[in-house]
Amino acid sequence: MKVSTLGEFELIDRLCAILGNERDDQLVVGIGDDAAAWKPSPGRLLTATTDALVEGVHFSLDTTRWEDLGWKALAENVSDIAAMGCRPRYALIALALPGETALADVEALYDGLRECGEAFDCLVVGGDTVHAPLLVVHVTVIGESLPVAGDGTPLLTRSAARPGDLLAVTGPLGASAAGLRLLSENVEFELADAPLLAAHRRPVPRVVAGLTLVEAGVRCGIDVSDGLLADVGHLCERSGYDAEIDAIRVPVHEAALARYGEAALDMALSGGEDYELVCAGSRDALAQASARLVDLGEPPLTLIGSIVERRGERPEVWLIGPNGVADHVVGGGYQHFGGQR
Amino acid sequence: MKVSTLGEFELIDRLCAILGNERDDQLVVGIGDDAAAWKPSPGRLLTATTDALVEGVHFSLDTTRWEDLGWKALAENVSDIAAMGCRPRYALIALALPGETALADVEALYDGLRECGEAFDCLVVGGDTVHAPLLVVHVTVIGESLPVAGDGTPLLTRSAARPGDLLAVTGPLGASAAGLRLLSENVEFELADAPLLAAHRRPVPRVVAGLTLVEAGVRCGIDVSDGLLADVGHLCERSGYDAEIDAIRVPVHEAALARYGEAALDMALSGGEDYELVCAGSRDALAQASARLVDLGEPPLTLIGSIVERRGERPEVWLIGPNGVADHVVGGGYQHFGGQR
Repeated sequence: MKVSTLGEFELIDRLCAILGNERDDQLVVGIGDDAAAWKPSPGRLLTATTDALVEGVHFSLDTTRWEDLGWKALAENVSDIAAMGCRPRYALIALALPGETALADVEALYDGLRECGEAFDCLVVGGDTVHAPLLVVHVTVIGESLPVAGDGTPLLTRSAARPGDLLAVTGPLGASAAGLRLLSENVEFELADAPLLAAHRRPVPRVVAGLTLVEAGVRCGIDVSDGLLADVGHLCERSGYDAEIDAIRVPVHEAALARYGEAALDMALSGGEDYELVCAGSRDALAQASARLVDLGEPPLTLIGSIVERRGERPEVWLIGPNGVADHVVGGGYQHFGGQR
Repeated sequence: MKVSTLGEFELIDRLCAILGNERDDQLVVGIGDDAAAWKPSPGRLLTATTDALVEGVHFSLDTTRWEDLGWKALAENVSDIAAMGCRPRYALIALALPGETALADVEALYDGLRECGEAFDCLVVGGDTVHAPLLVVHVTVIGESLPVAGDGTPLLTRSAARPGDLLAVTGPLGASAAGLRLLSENVEFELADAPLLAAHRRPVPRVVAGLTLVEAGVRCGIDVSDGLLADVGHLCERSGYDAEIDAIRVPVHEAALARYGEAALDMALSGGEDYELVCAGSRDALAQASARLVDLGEPPLTLIGSIVERRGERPEVWLIGPNGVADHVVGGGYQHFGGQR
């Protein structure tokens, strides 16, 4: 059955049924009104982020399953909340889709949304469903911080890096890019490739890691969505300092290494969509966060470099090769409209 | 210059420059981080809504100026917040657009966004700009309620109508539909048509009216976006009762009447995009709200009907004609994917 045979309101009813009538005790108005309404937790900051996934630009329906698209669309936004050191609370989904879309496909997309929402305690509380010539999945996620204490704002921001801070990542990189390459090469998958496909299809935002970093006193972070070098570039840009990254210390995902050898380092540096967090902080704060993460059953932090005084007019990222020479990095991440900074 | 010659980050810089660095004292992190962050006002509920405007579906660039598109995209979402009886606070904008779009056009769109944001105290605090084969403007607005007092939730919802409630609208209807018809007929405009064009191009969400309704004790409302009959239908659906509307009491915009005569009544009943509020409440509460609105320099409320017990299995809207006969109304508003309920 195509969605065009249902009409908007019937479609919305079907999609709501998939999401279920899950509520929490702070939600006052859920799906079905002009807006969702809730009672915010006292003493916390709120965060909000939004992202659009466009068919043919961010994903291809040839290589992306509908349920994975649903998961990924929500996971990307949850990751932005995690990168602020916050926990996700509520999501709004706006879906633009062609009338000839199969109902079963849209339902699969909502299955993926629901699974991701359940995995990260993020309730879908509203949205919009409209007709369009191509599929655009649009997600907004609202999150909340840890309680505000006397000593400032419990957030990870891009602008809080200072010279002397060490740079760390919350897990191995390059798996998502390796998974994408596997899918686009159309090769036969081996069992050892499973983590790569999973990393690309169902990325896991690092919510616990973000909260743990803030709790330990770290105040600067970003998620690896554009690629490590590009995202550290964003930190430098907003903080006004340079960064040095030791190439040899960057944790490359072992399944990516097994599959692609040396090329996996490039995937780890520039691939993007890993959704690990990269953060900057004092050695003490990072050590404390790392120990807590291990206690919580999460991977420890990996130190990969440091924030240093600016060498030139604009903040830059320097990649230090195995020979100890610092190469100036121009870009290395995905940018829309083909620009390069 | 085309946006593709700039690249994503340069484009974002340009657009941020248009929005300016406006802040308020609750905003902690604005544009340029993984998410916006703010300190919510204590003792209030939060509301969030999202809407997508798709080129060729919701608007045509032949009849819509870019700056008006910016205004309208934000105004629609502000109206959803007004329809909850809340004030808008922050907006997130996600723009999907073709690389060949002229920079000047995108800048004009942002001019319109900024003007609307300034008019309704709604700061743009974040967003996303992505490449796409067609233009999709995606807006999320977050609002806050009046302070929560002992006697319940200070919101207008669709589900709070009860038999005996009177129905009222906050202003005349049909102007936007008349404006759209004027634009699509390509006729020469007269001075008297100006309000119709303005209503279609730059609709004015009724934020003050929504807040005033809540303050006076009204708890049920919706904005007229799909069309009066359709939107009252939504109220009935969610509340579980029928509504009766006296056709003769529906305030038809006088410029629409002057231009289109009797056809203007249909525009008022089914045209949509008027963004007036229609609400249900006790005679006392509505009278009190109306008096306050006049004090504030706003139009008074117009009573148009009432909420009644359900006659059939499903909630329905009955339109009472000049002869006193109640016609059962099936639909009458725009619905995506061509469905009809």
